[in-house]
Amino acid sequence: MKAWSGLVLSAVLAATPFAAFAQTAAQTPATPGSAEALPDVAARLRERALSGSGAYDILESLTTEVGPRAAGSPAMARAKDWAIARMTALGFKNVHAEAYAIPAWFRGVETAEVTAPFPQPLDITGLGRSVATPPEGIEAEAVLFATFEALQAAPAGSLKGKIAVLTERMGANDSPTGYGTANRWRRKGPSEAAKRGAVGFLIRSLATNDNRAPHSGALNYDDDVAKIPAAALSGADADQLERIARRGKPIRVRFTLRPTLVPAATTWNVVGEIPGRVTPDEVVLVSGHLDSWELGTGAIDDGAGVAITLAAAHLAGERHPRRTIRMVMWGAEETDYAGEAYAKAHAADASKIVVAGESDNGAQHIVALQAPAGGADLAPIKTLVQVLAPLGVTLNTAPSRSGGDDVGHLAPLGVPQINLRQENSHYFDIHHSAEDTFDKVDPAELDKATAAWTAAIWVLAESGVDFRKAASAVATR
Amino acid sequence: MKAWSGLVLSAVLAATPFAAFAQTAAQTPATPGSAEALPDVAARLRERALSGSGAYDILESLTTEVGPRAAGSPAMARAKDWAIARMTALGFKNVHAEAYAIPAWFRGVETAEVTAPFPQPLDITGLGRSVATPPEGIEAEAVLFATFEALQAAPAGSLKGKIAVLTERMGANDSPTGYGTANRWRRKGPSEAAKRGAVGFLIRSLATNDNRAPHSGALNYDDDVAKIPAAALSGADADQLERIARRGKPIRVRFTLRPTLVPAATTWNVVGEIPGRVTPDEVVLVSGHLDSWELGTGAIDDGAGVAITLAAAHLAGERHPRRTIRMVMWGAEETDYAGEAYAKAHAADASKIVVAGESDNGAQHIVALQAPAGGADLAPIKTLVQVLAPLGVTLNTAPSRSGGDDVGHLAPLGVPQINLRQENSHYFDIHHSAEDTFDKVDPAELDKATAAWTAAIWVLAESGVDFRKAASAVATR
Repeated sequence: MKAWSGLVLSAVLAATPFAAFAQTAAQTPATPGSAEALPDVAARLRERALSGSGAYDILESLTTEVGPRAAGSPAMARAKDWAIARMTALGFKNVHAEAYAIPAWFRGVETAEVTAPFPQPLDITGLGRSVATPPEGIEAEAVLFATFEALQAAPAGSLKGKIAVLTERMGANDSPTGYGTANRWRRKGPSEAAKRGAVGFLIRSLATNDNRAPHSGALNYDDDVAKIPAAALSGADADQLERIARRGKPIRVRFTLRPTLVPAATTWNVVGEIPGRVTPDEVVLVSGHLDSWELGTGAIDDGAGVAITLAAAHLAGERHPRRTIRMVMWGAEETDYAGEAYAKAHAADASKIVVAGESDNGAQHIVALQAPAGGADLAPIKTLVQVLAPLGVTLNTAPSRSGGDDVGHLAPLGVPQINLRQENSHYFDIHHSAEDTFDKVDPAELDKATAAWTAAIWVLAESGVDFRKAASAVATR
Repeated sequence: MKAWSGLVLSAVLAATPFAAFAQTAAQTPATPGSAEALPDVAARLRERALSGSGAYDILESLTTEVGPRAAGSPAMARAKDWAIARMTALGFKNVHAEAYAIPAWFRGVETAEVTAPFPQPLDITGLGRSVATPPEGIEAEAVLFATFEALQAAPAGSLKGKIAVLTERMGANDSPTGYGTANRWRRKGPSEAAKRGAVGFLIRSLATNDNRAPHSGALNYDDDVAKIPAAALSGADADQLERIARRGKPIRVRFTLRPTLVPAATTWNVVGEIPGRVTPDEVVLVSGHLDSWELGTGAIDDGAGVAITLAAAHLAGERHPRRTIRMVMWGAEETDYAGEAYAKAHAADASKIVVAGESDNGAQHIVALQAPAGGADLAPIKTLVQVLAPLGVTLNTAPSRSGGDDVGHLAPLGVPQINLRQENSHYFDIHHSAEDTFDKVDPAELDKATAAWTAAIWVLAESGVDFRKAASAVATR
């Protein structure tokens, strides 16, 4: 975003062999089976998306007309209807919703306060799947831990009757204590505290800023440990508890969480296709997730992913590639069930999916392409790398093993995975918090991301690229 | 803050006649009645404050050990105790609290949602003095107004049974639609809407950013108009309502506010003095307000003002000036009663106050000095202007008529007013919102502000500057 001003981009494009197409793309009709070379069409599609991909309008529509959409909620049912209507209007075929049941968790009253030594409110939000407190909340002495390791090192029984508070600060994205590491603190922290006798667990929001908006996210209780209520503190509130703790007096905290758990609620993976003009049984699957945490309107997580891949599939689809493009909007990514449900329902036809990808890392431009094992050596991928270069995309030569939290469930079924990684150094400023709203999204950035996906989808769906074969070749090399 | 890096400041200091003192200030004991020239001591004190004024520690203590402190609340009683203890520890004399009764308003449950056409939650916070809704809230059609003028132009009866929503965006500070103008929208909007039949009023937060944290602030009901419940929407939520409205379908909104009004609660102006060594009956009054809105911890509004003036009074007081320095911490600025109570209680001795000032505009450095009418021509003020120049302070030649919301009540009693205006272009990003917390404050900026106040207090209390006489001279000129 910062590195690619329009001026810089224009200068780069002027130096590429694709520049000539940029100026005429808008006038050129789709020509199925035309003699135009693959990279030329890919570059033309890239420019078409850059000049206004439609992704921003899709995102505006979803976040405004549906708003927050927790998996299993009435809002999710409206999101499903929205998705069907939107894909139908864009000319997708075979548009349908695939229902499945999930344990759904709905936020209720959430309050917290320091009761001693300095009474004052705290801003918290419950972690997904947390059990409820009693209606009057729980009050106990708070024991602060500066690191997850310190919590794990606490002796058995040492937290009996206490509220454990983990104030460790998550690092910048891709740093050693970035989200990849830190999300284990949130997922495992409650049971680690409970094992040592704690009656409640609070964690500094996993976030790269420290405002007052706490960031949610799911926890995973161990089966054999007491389930204790657990919430995230805003960064500023975690700082405040640390300052209070430095006074050396015992701290007492009270918090209340009144979520509801519905053991079997319905949600949907919503699907639409652009049937392939030559080999419709070969499927390029692209996706984003439709569900969101409900504190914001799920703009960057993951309305953006839905908008980027839907707009890209539509634009690439207008050129009617050889293979089928299948758009999937996942119905329960935040609670982990969508990919599993899809893999279970599609075990028999997963072999038709030639590659699967997912956009779930924000609304910024793409910085790297990652292909399945052996894929980087294939001519169409080399072509794609060239087409994406003017967008600032580089090839990451590490093989892609999972294209995302949802499509990753197809990997064990042999479905090749592709990644288009995004610039996301500020993603965790607002991720999973009330600040994840439409106004945070830059339309030019969204179009840049969509441009990369559009070119990628075209190359994957129009070429005969065979990742399974490439992977076998690598394996037997 | 941006204009004055340490490097730039050092360069300027090196070019001033006061630079020599900067290096030895720490070693020089206070010397009451010494022969050191007024500007030399002022410059020495300025440097002393810049090297660590103690203001940051005071602010950390207040925001941590008391936290939010609404006038009339138990937290305000703790703030009063904190203030007495802190001033006593700093060696102030005659430390005492002056009690008075105020109508206090305490926030209760606050919720809001769009119920049609696209059900979703809204982030709001009640406006100070708002009446409560029924426990189940009120639900009605929302009518959006893009400007306050449009609301005022709505015909009588046109809002009957509706919720009026003012989405006008406040401008940057000091712009034509900055807070000086916009705070009338908040104060007068509820009665303007009620006059036309509205049953509720929502206003886009008066703020210079558009995050999800709504900003509070007081309203003023007209006496002869129905009192309707009123709240501020976050900027992002106001945007969302505007987007929904563009769909052209009727919007229904429900909101609930359950505040409590206590007709006569106790609060305190807390006072401490450094008695003058020569003319103790001449008083230089400096101040900040101790009360705060309770969404944040009142760090920039106005813990910073308390910390800056208390640290400055203490540092200047260590040199024992001729006149008495009186530090006042106001107990009800946000609800408008503190200055009035003080003026009423001190009508008989207001003539002893030679000048009064107040710091209530954030935690950043000082940009301008404003003296009472005729004051800019006095030699001590010319000296002060020179001493403040290295801090980036310029003289604003317009006469100061009010030193602040509280000390301004002393102006009708003839008390001269002084202003030290602060850089505050981002003040309204967090003002009156949950984001007003200690972590937002830069200690170097706080020291720079304190340095200016320290030098000013010294000059005002050590010189014989007589603003009343200067004003008379101007008047008869």
